[in-house]
Formats: sequence, structure tokens, C-alpha cells
Amino acid sequence: MGAKNVCLMTDKNLSHLPPVQVVMDSLVKNGITFELYDNVRVEPTDTSFMDAIEFAKRGAFDAYVAVGGGSTMDTCKAANLYASNPQSEFLDYVNAPIGKGKPVSVPLKPLIAVPTTSGTGSETTGVAIFDYEHLKVKTGIASRAIKPTLGLVDPLHTLHMPGQVVANSGFDVLCHALESYTALPYHMRSPCPSNPISRPAYQGSNPISDIWSVQALRIVAKYLKRAVRNPDDLEARSNMHLASAFAGIGFGNAGVHLCHGMSYPISGLVKTYKAKDYNVDHPLVPHGLSVVLTSPAVFTFTAKMFPERHLETAEILGADTRTAKIQDAGPVLADTLRKFLFDLNVDNGLAAIGYSKADIPALVKGTLPQERVTKLAPRPQSEEDLSALFEASMKLY
Amino acid sequence: MGAKNVCLMTDKNLSHLPPVQVVMDSLVKNGITFELYDNVRVEPTDTSFMDAIEFAKRGAFDAYVAVGGGSTMDTCKAANLYASNPQSEFLDYVNAPIGKGKPVSVPLKPLIAVPTTSGTGSETTGVAIFDYEHLKVKTGIASRAIKPTLGLVDPLHTLHMPGQVVANSGFDVLCHALESYTALPYHMRSPCPSNPISRPAYQGSNPISDIWSVQALRIVAKYLKRAVRNPDDLEARSNMHLASAFAGIGFGNAGVHLCHGMSYPISGLVKTYKAKDYNVDHPLVPHGLSVVLTSPAVFTFTAKMFPERHLETAEILGADTRTAKIQDAGPVLADTLRKFLFDLNVDNGLAAIGYSKADIPALVKGTLPQERVTKLAPRPQSEEDLSALFEASMKLY
Repeated sequence: MGAKNVCLMTDKNLSHLPPVQVVMDSLVKNGITFELYDNVRVEPTDTSFMDAIEFAKRGAFDAYVAVGGGSTMDTCKAANLYASNPQSEFLDYVNAPIGKGKPVSVPLKPLIAVPTTSGTGSETTGVAIFDYEHLKVKTGIASRAIKPTLGLVDPLHTLHMPGQVVANSGFDVLCHALESYTALPYHMRSPCPSNPISRPAYQGSNPISDIWSVQALRIVAKYLKRAVRNPDDLEARSNMHLASAFAGIGFGNAGVHLCHGMSYPISGLVKTYKAKDYNVDHPLVPHGLSVVLTSPAVFTFTAKMFPERHLETAEILGADTRTAKIQDAGPVLADTLRKFLFDLNVDNGLAAIGYSKADIPALVKGTLPQERVTKLAPRPQSEEDLSALFEASMKLY
Repeated sequence: MGAKNVCLMTDKNLSHLPPVQVVMDSLVKNGITFELYDNVRVEPTDTSFMDAIEFAKRGAFDAYVAVGGGSTMDTCKAANLYASNPQSEFLDYVNAPIGKGKPVSVPLKPLIAVPTTSGTGSETTGVAIFDYEHLKVKTGIASRAIKPTLGLVDPLHTLHMPGQVVANSGFDVLCHALESYTALPYHMRSPCPSNPISRPAYQGSNPISDIWSVQALRIVAKYLKRAVRNPDDLEARSNMHLASAFAGIGFGNAGVHLCHGMSYPISGLVKTYKAKDYNVDHPLVPHGLSVVLTSPAVFTFTAKMFPERHLETAEILGADTRTAKIQDAGPVLADTLRKFLFDLNVDNGLAAIGYSKADIPALVKGTLPQERVTKLAPRPQSEEDLSALFEASMKLY
């Protein structure tokens, strides 16, 4: 790539661990100047994005390397975007209706993404997610232009993950696969944008994304429990690392829908919950957990459309569907998911992470601006529907 | 892409048909100057490549559009490569040991590939194949650099294909899928090139290519016969068009091996055979036919390595493998292929297309320089092995 002045981004926990060391050694060995930015916030915010952007602007870098989970890769994508286009306002590229959702027309610098968690698939996507503190809601930037130039998916990097991080990031893979496979089909979306540059990153489910989503789901079914239980199970952790990238290619093209749309306020409105195994100084509902807790309710709701696909995913996840009726696809998949989550000791619903019925209006209000994804659900939803979905997710078992 | 002066390549049969008309109308409507080159040879040669290259050099084009089958897309890739690098000799980029196999270091112009047959997958690959007349052998150019910028895989274009063209191009998909899925795994290839720019386009089978190869095979099993039988079966023809692209992504990364390596002399040494439904003025063994005729013998031979994968593909193609022994994987797959080819009225082996035992030394001699692919076979082969494979392919049924 001819890079001479590289920006290396990571978080404080990783900065002294082998995945970052390997990159620094390689840069030194190849005589490439670099600066380390290790101030990435786990579950980033607009403020933490800005900090990284300022660093990138000052450095005038000609390439970026992001080593970490989705938070790091997403922060690095934003830094590359705004440093390549210093005149732009922060909200210019943030998804509408929160931001202006402008198409990106400037060329970006090369970005190499090295994932160290197995969930986000961010190394394969043109999406960068952050908490918009002002509105207490998650949103993001979505454009093909910010997709990393190269992803280095090295399974050895996953051996440093604590079990709970493996579980939660695995739930993200699970939901990426399920949501993208059940997303509104590409030919049912409307209206067409008038110019190809206005095409959204998310196109609806299609024959290409389907392949990735289904394959990722098969790997989750086979390997997630093993990967959580035993940190030394390199076969299981390698396969989950691949599944994360596979699901990333799937949802990066097809999109996600309700589990993700509803997860943003679940994370954004966090009160005091602090997840086990996450070394951070602020309350945090890990992204994968915030996504998966609504999954039984969501897929019960969406299975009214495309029940065959819902039943097929239940079968991949281990359900015996030979005698299942097609109209029961939703409950069959929901029960399969509940069993899967119970086996992995997942908190018993939104109530267990600090929410009560009184919070539902705020959770619904935080979901409404997530149109970019919620409109990809196979079934349209009213505010009452969303309210019922949050209520049904208070308790899982 | 900002193109202002486009080279549109196709063959004489297609130049007045809708797929080319649609492109010309679009170029005119958008005020883009273009020149039409409709002199592509079906099964191109070094001479026909040169003719297209000279046209491209004279035109000083800033983008290319190829509308046609593999012959057209491959010719256009070569034209783009040499016109972008006018100082180079023709053999510079041709695969070693026939050519020099130099890595491509010049930037090429954008190339949009619009396939009108469902076999080559050339719209997804960095490969361009031609007959090297001087040696009477097929060879090619293989580099990521010549991969099309964009492929437009429109199923409506396949409705113009005669049944025999659908069958033969479908056999190419079948063999792309089978060969790439059984190719030597990527971690068993050696030695590593000293510099990444010297990495071959073909990397051996790997977890990414496997997904595409298997999915393509499933589609072939389900739709090829229907697509051959009924030109109006848009579902079947659409699916075969996708399968062609899927298998292209699979073998374009993993590679092909013996069916393809042995097919080049089978096509190159053609005597008087003229395929039905091919409107050409020279003897021709269509590529897909030349590839598939050796497949029962080849997979009987290669199944000694990785028999599980061979048995799995037999099952996908319709064999009942529940009671099959793993050591019978080769014969089981070979029988499945013979039945499949018989049902599709395929010529009864190499003898039926004009070859006899006396031709075997020449066929072996023409295979030996195809190292680029033959060394990807899961099992190494001696000259005696190749000779036995050609002999076993004289008669199929």
C-alpha cells in the first residue's frame, strides 16, 4: 500500500497484548513510521469518536490499522472518514434522521482491520456504530466507503477473550445471521433511490447474503458453546472467528432489523448494569447481550412473514422440526433460542439487566429513529408492536 | 466511473442481440462515446487476443464493457491488461512455464463484465484463457489485477442460449465446483512465495471458497437439467446464472485441477468435431464438454485423498450415500457423474469426439505444461497416471 505514516488504533486493554505487539513489531521491522492511539472507548460515543478524529486529523496519516473489537474498528473507520474530509461536520455522515446521511464522495485512506473479538464482523462492513450521548441513543455511519480495505482474521487473536466476551460477541453473530436471513427480501424494498450513490449499505436479504448468513448460523450452532466453555479450544474459537466475518458479509449486505434496532436504546439507556469480564469504568450492556435478549420475542413476531426461513433457522440451531407446523415457526424458533440462551447462562431478560415496565416508553422512543434497520424487518411494526416486544422480552425463561 | 470513451467487446453472434443492444442504448442515452469490437473469437487464440489488444491500444479507452461468454470476457481482460501496459511483450503475463508469468504492477482501466452464458464465471475471476496456437495448447493469464471491476449477472440474458450451450456451460460450473472443493487445501500448498505480489491467483481450497463451491453444486444438482430442457424456465436459468458466478468465486480463489488441466489439450488438439448449437466456422470442442468428459476418471483417482469431500459431493448430486463405504467415494461419485451426463445426452467419452488411444501421448504432453492447475490436484500425478486417466475417459457408459 506504500504507507509511510500509519495510525494504529486500539483500546487500553489490548495495547499491551500480543495482537497489538505483533502489528507494532511488523511496522518497526518494515521501517514504517506510526503513531499509537489507544484511547478507543468500548462502546464508543460521539465524544470518543471526535477524540479519535482529532488525533487522525493532526497525524495526517496515509493508512490506518485497527486492532480490536467492533468499538476499535468502528472508531477507526470514523477517524479515517472525517480526517479524509476535514471540512465536513460530524452529523453530515451520521445516519438520517439523526444525522444528514450524506453519501461519501471523498476517497479514504487504506484501513486494515484486525478483529480480536468474534462478533461484530466490522472488518467486513461499511458500518460504524456509536452512542449519540445527547439523545441517549445508538446510531451510526453506514457507507460502503468506510469498509476496511483488508481484514486480517487471525484465530490466534481470539485466545485472549474471556468466556463472557466470547458468549456476548457470539450472540451478535447469531443475531446478524438470523436477522439478515429473515430481513425483507431485496426485491420487496421500495422506493428505489434515484441515483446509485444514494443506495443504502443494507439491501435486504438476497441470494448472496443468504449463503453467508446460513453458513454463519451453522457454525454458531456447532461451535459457540464450545468456544465459550474452553478458552483453549482453538478449533471452536477459530470457527467462531470465521463465523463472525461470514455473518458480517451477510448482514453487511442484507442488513439487520429488529433485534439490532431495539438493542440501541437497551444499550444507550443503561443504568447500573456492569457486565462480567468487561474491564471498563462505566455501566455497560455489551452489544451482543443487548441484541439477543429480544430475539425470542422478535422472531415470534416476524415469523408471520417467511415462516419457512424461521423454521429452517430453528432446525439449524438444533430443533427437531420434522413434525412442526409452518404456522408455529415463530414459537419453535423462540423456544430454540430460549434453550440456547439458558444453556449459556444468559441473564433472564431485560428485567435482569435493570429494566422494568416503566422504561418501555423510553425504549420504544429510542427505537423509533432506528428506521435504517427497523424498516428492514419482514413485518412492519407500530409503536404498540414495539412496546409489546419489549414487554415480552422482560423475562425469557 | 467517469468513463468518457468506452470499449464495448462482444462476438459476432451476440452483436445484434438484446444484451448488447441494451448496453449500447445505455451508453448512447448517457452520452458516453464508445467503439464496438465484435471480433471476439469463441474459444480465443493468441492471434485473436492480439487483434483485440491492438484495437484497445488504438482506441485509448478509459473503460471496458464485455458482453458475452467466457471468450469475450477473457479477451476483454487481456485487451485491458496489454493496452494499460503497452511496452509489455505478449508472453510477459502468460502463465509460466509457457509464458513468463510476471506479476502485474500497472493499474488497469475499469472493466464491466456482463455474462450471457452460465458457466465460465469469468465475471468473478482474474483469469483469461486462450489457445496458444504455436504449441496447440490452451493456457492463460492469471492475476487478480485483471478481475472485472463489476459483474452484471442478469438472468434475462440467459434466455438466448441454445440448450446445448446451457448444458456445456453448466458442465463447466459443475467441474469448477467439484474441482475447487476437492483442490489441495490452502495450508498444504508449498512453498510460500517470498513476496505477496507473487502469490498465485489460485490458493487451494479454503473455508471461503468451499462455501461458494458447495452452493454452486447444490444449484447445478437442482436446476441444470431443467435449464437445458426448457429455454423458458426462467427460475432454472436464473439459478444456473447465479451458480456460474458462485462457482466462479469459489474456483477463482481455490483453483481448479485435473479436469481443467486435461481439458486444455482436449480442446486444443480438436480435429473435426463440431458441437451442435455452436455457430462457429471452425472445429470446436466446447470448453465445458472438454472438462466434464474426464470427470468420472479424475474423481475416481483423486478420491483417494479427501474421500469424505468426494462422497459429500456425490450426495449433493443425488447419490444415496447412506450405506456407501468411505473407500468407495471415488467410484460412487464417478457413477453419479456418469448417470448425470447420460441423462443429459453427453457424448460417450473422448472417443465420441474424435480421439483414440493413439492420441493419448499428445494429450498427456499437452497436459504437462498446465502445472498451474494440475499441481492443485489433491493427489500428485505421474505421466502414467495422466495417460491412464485419458484412457479411462475414452468411453463413459
